Amino acid sequence: MRKTVLYIAMSLDGYIADDGGKVDWLEGQESADESEGTYTEFVQEIDTVVMGWKTYHQVMTELSPDEWVYSDLTTYVITHREKEPEEKIRFVQDSPSNLIRNLKNSEGKDIWICGGAEIVRQLMQDELIDRFYISVIPVILGKGIRLFGKMEKRLELKLLETRSWNGITELLYEKREEQ
Amino acid sequence: MRKTVLYIAMSLDGYIADDGGKVDWLEGQESADESEGTYTEFVQEIDTVVMGWKTYHQVMTELSPDEWVYSDLTTYVITHREKEPEEKIRFVQDSPSNLIRNLKNSEGKDIWICGGAEIVRQLMQDELIDRFYISVIPVILGKGIRLFGKMEKRLELKLLETRSWNGITELLYEKREEQ
Repeated sequence: MRKTVLYIAMSLDGYIADDGGKVDWLEGQESADESEGTYTEFVQEIDTVVMGWKTYHQVMTELSPDEWVYSDLTTYVITHREKEPEEKIRFVQDSPSNLIRNLKNSEGKDIWICGGAEIVRQLMQDELIDRFYISVIPVILGKGIRLFGKMEKRLELKLLETRSWNGITELLYEKREEQ
Repeated sequence: MRKTVLYIAMSLDGYIADDGGKVDWLEGQESADESEGTYTEFVQEIDTVVMGWKTYHQVMTELSPDEWVYSDLTTYVITHREKEPEEKIRFVQDSPSNLIRNLKNSEGKDIWICGGAEIVRQLMQDELIDRFYISVIPVILGKGIRLFGKMEKRLELKLLETRSWNGITELLYEKREEQ
């Protein structure tokens, strides 16, 4: 079955965006030489990316205004807005968990969960994230949007790999199957 | 000058204790073979440990009721309680930052900041932590006591080392000096 993979960067204190929703502290870090990290390997395992509207909007306006950066993938944007599909981008009004269950039951390569925090939270709560690639950026932001929210249930993980480059540490975990 | 070192374990989602204040999820992980980690090296660099009352009480009652585990170190317990000093344990009513400033100006090896979260927060805010040894435990707790609290100022770090053992990843940072 297709795996769902959370591939995301956070500050050491667990923020994915600062209190203005900005990720500029991240770009400076990552621009050095991304090829040292796991991204190149990671994108070869996936063909689909899932994100919320705010993340979509941020990628469109801030990160890459000129072209859709994930044009090699099928993008699903979860939003309440009614929007016609664009080339390789589908806007869905489904819940994150329903969308992911449907995608997992269809054919394809792995599925990248790209954010934001609310979608990640719902999928974690429903135990629908199989792998976690967390890039820890060497900064303590102090405030902002947290990656991990409150959950009722503990989630045990298994560490698969770590890698360090340019001050960033990548931690790769998979969900530990119940014994 | 003596360095202050935060040496502490947290869950991947940044908790140092569960919502009952318990750390049993931590003990199970660490008991495997601590010698693989950095602890043995770390304790050789320090002669002093600083903690709050709750951390002190937890070590006394839960972790090691029979003997004071840090008997090789001088322990400072920050508390509002008036207590007579015990062998190698001094109870101080000073603020964390004042205590640390005084200790840093005195002779000795490095100083371990052991917790809890409130003391860590005050010292980070005042930029009084020089090094961060963070052991990331492979679990997402979902709730509990967070290591990192809200801070007004960003803290840039420099990654010095990472080490993995028994599913735990140790991240060693030092404060990046302003340029």
